Amino acid sequence: MMISLPYLLRKENICHISDGSVHIGDRRVFPFEKRFEACSSVEEVSTALKSMVTQGGGPLQVAFTTLRFIADGMLQHRYAYSFAELTRQVGLLISARPTNTTMRRVMLALLDDLSPFCTQDTPVEDFVRHLNLLVDTQEMAYDDLYHHMGRIGSTLLEDADVILTTCFAEHTFLLSLAYAKEQGKNISVLVNETRPYLQGARLTYPSLVEMGIDAHIITDGMGAHYLSEGKITKYMTASDLVCLDGTVVNKVGSLSNAVACKYYGVPYYAFSISPDPTKRTSSDIPMEERDGQEVLHCLGRATTSEGRALYPSFDCIEPSLVQGIVTPKGVLAPSEIARSFT
Amino acid sequence: MMISLPYLLRKENICHISDGSVHIGDRRVFPFEKRFEACSSVEEVSTALKSMVTQGGGPLQVAFTTLRFIADGMLQHRYAYSFAELTRQVGLLISARPTNTTMRRVMLALLDDLSPFCTQDTPVEDFVRHLNLLVDTQEMAYDDLYHHMGRIGSTLLEDADVILTTCFAEHTFLLSLAYAKEQGKNISVLVNETRPYLQGARLTYPSLVEMGIDAHIITDGMGAHYLSEGKITKYMTASDLVCLDGTVVNKVGSLSNAVACKYYGVPYYAFSISPDPTKRTSSDIPMEERDGQEVLHCLGRATTSEGRALYPSFDCIEPSLVQGIVTPKGVLAPSEIARSFT
Repeated sequence: MMISLPYLLRKENICHISDGSVHIGDRRVFPFEKRFEACSSVEEVSTALKSMVTQGGGPLQVAFTTLRFIADGMLQHRYAYSFAELTRQVGLLISARPTNTTMRRVMLALLDDLSPFCTQDTPVEDFVRHLNLLVDTQEMAYDDLYHHMGRIGSTLLEDADVILTTCFAEHTFLLSLAYAKEQGKNISVLVNETRPYLQGARLTYPSLVEMGIDAHIITDGMGAHYLSEGKITKYMTASDLVCLDGTVVNKVGSLSNAVACKYYGVPYYAFSISPDPTKRTSSDIPMEERDGQEVLHCLGRATTSEGRALYPSFDCIEPSLVQGIVTPKGVLAPSEIARSFT
Repeated sequence: MMISLPYLLRKENICHISDGSVHIGDRRVFPFEKRFEACSSVEEVSTALKSMVTQGGGPLQVAFTTLRFIADGMLQHRYAYSFAELTRQVGLLISARPTNTTMRRVMLALLDDLSPFCTQDTPVEDFVRHLNLLVDTQEMAYDDLYHHMGRIGSTLLEDADVILTTCFAEHTFLLSLAYAKEQGKNISVLVNETRPYLQGARLTYPSLVEMGIDAHIITDGMGAHYLSEGKITKYMTASDLVCLDGTVVNKVGSLSNAVACKYYGVPYYAFSISPDPTKRTSSDIPMEERDGQEVLHCLGRATTSEGRALYPSFDCIEPSLVQGIVTPKGVLAPSEIARSFT
C-alpha cells in the first residue's frame, strides 16, 4: 500500500515554481486558507523564510526549488552566471533561518559538489544541467530518507500508544504514524497547540485528521496534566537541530514536556536526519530571539493591552531528558550520536 | 503608605449592585473593555459564574454581593422570605464552580451562623439586618486576610527576584508584590499567558503594569526555558483548592511549571486562605472538565478548522513539588497543612 502524504507535506504544496515565481505554501494561514506566497526573487524567498511563511522541513524544500529557479534565471539571463553569484544567492537562503541548520548544510554541500562544474569555460547550459541534477538527486535522497525514518519511527510505536507532540513534526513523525497505522497499530495523538503561531492546532492536527489518526488538541501547559494521569505513553517531536552530545534543539515548549516526561517516566523521542557536526553542545548554538510582539498576538489579534513579552524560538533539551533520537541510522541514544555520525 | 489595589481587584470592579441588578466585572473582555455583566436574578449570577465572567477570588466577592441582593429582594418581596429559599439561592451560587470550594465553605458557614436568626417568628427586617451584618463582617475579614497574607508573602520575596506566575493569582500574590515593592525590593515577573482564556496576559500583566512592577508575558510552554537558563528564582500561583495532604489544585498549566521547578531546583509557592478540610488528597477532588471547544478558540476566534480538544480546568500538584503554601498562619510546608488547620 502506498503511504499518502497529507496536504501540507505534498511537495507542490510546500513550494513550486509557476509564472516565473517561487510559490511557497503559506503555513501561517493554513487551514483557514490554502494560499501561496509568490516570490519573484531570491531576496523575496529569503524574506518569506524569515517571516515563517514555512518552517521545519519547509525551508529545505524551498531551497531546492529556489536553486531550480536560479538555474532557470541564469539560462534566461535574469541572473548573472557565475559561481560567486550562485554562492551569494544561496547565502541569502541560508541566512534566513540561523538555528535550523539542515538547509545550510545541504546547500553548502551542494555548492561544494557543484564547484568543479563551474569554471570559466563551462557553458551555462552545462552548469545548469549539473545544478539541476544535483538538486534532483538530493531531493530524491531526502524523500527516501523521510520514508526510511518513518519506518524506523513506526517500530517505536505500539498499539494503543497515546503520543504527545509539539509544533509540526512533519514528514518523519507523520510517516511514522502512517506506517504504524499500516501495521495495524491504533495510535492516538495529543497535540500541543504551540503558541504563538499555533502550528500544532493549525498544521499537525488537520494533517492527522486527514491521515485518519485519532487526535485531540491541548494547550501548551496541559502535557504535564495528562502525563501525571498516566495517559501519555510517549512524547515525540521533530528537532530543529541536534548537537553531537545529543542535545535536542526544538520549538520552545518542548523542554517543558521533556522535563515532565522525565519526572513521570515517559520516554521522549526526537527525529533528526543528522546532528549538526559543527555543534558539540548547546553552548555552540546561536539562539533565535524573536520579536516579543509575536507573543502578544494570536492569529493577528492582540492578546492584551500593549505590553512587553519574550519569545525565545527554541528550547535546548539536555541529553539526559532524551530517550532516543530517531535517525536514518536507527534509534540512537543521545550518547551514541557523536560516534554514529562523525 | 497605603497599598492601592489595581483596577481588577477594587471591590466595585469585581461586583456591585446598581439599578436593582448584580453587576459583575467581566474579566473575559478585560483589558479591551471595562464591561459589567448585569444579572437581575441569582440564576443569572450562577450562569455568569459558570461562564467565567469572573474567576479565582471573584466568585466569593460576587457571592457576598449577591447575598446583599437577596436580602434586599426579601425586604422588597422580590424573594420569598424563608431560610429554605435563601439556602436554595445560595445553592445556585455554590453549584456554579465545583472545584473552587472557598466560596462554598464561606457560604455554608454563613448559612450556619444565620440559621438561629431565622425562625418562623423573626421579622424579615431583623433577618436581613443579621444577614447583612454577617456578610459585612466576612467581607472585612477577607480584606484583612488578603493584606495579612500579602505581608507574609512579601517576606518570601527578595531583591532582584524573578517570579514566574500562571493565570491571575489575585489579591494575595499581587499584595505580596506590592508590600515587597514598599519594602524597597526590586521584583520582576514572567507571566504565562494562560491559554485558553489568557488570564495571565489579560488580567495579571495589566495589573502588574498598573502597580509599577516590571513584567513580561511568555507563552505557557516557556517557563521551563527560563528555568533551565537560571533566570527564574521562584514560581508563585494562587490555588483553587488545597488538600489536607498539601496537594495544590490550580489552573491547568501550573503542574508543568511546578515539575520544571523541581527539576531545576527552583521553589514553588502557592497561596491559600485555608485548605479544604473535606479534601484529604487529590482523589477527593471532583475535577471540572470544561468544553474542549474553548481550547479551539482564542478571543473568540477559531484556532484551527473544526476539531476536537480537551480542557481539564485544573492541575493537581503533588505535595513533593510544593516548597511552601502561603497561608494566614504563615508559610507552611505541605506536610504542615493538616495539623495547622484541623
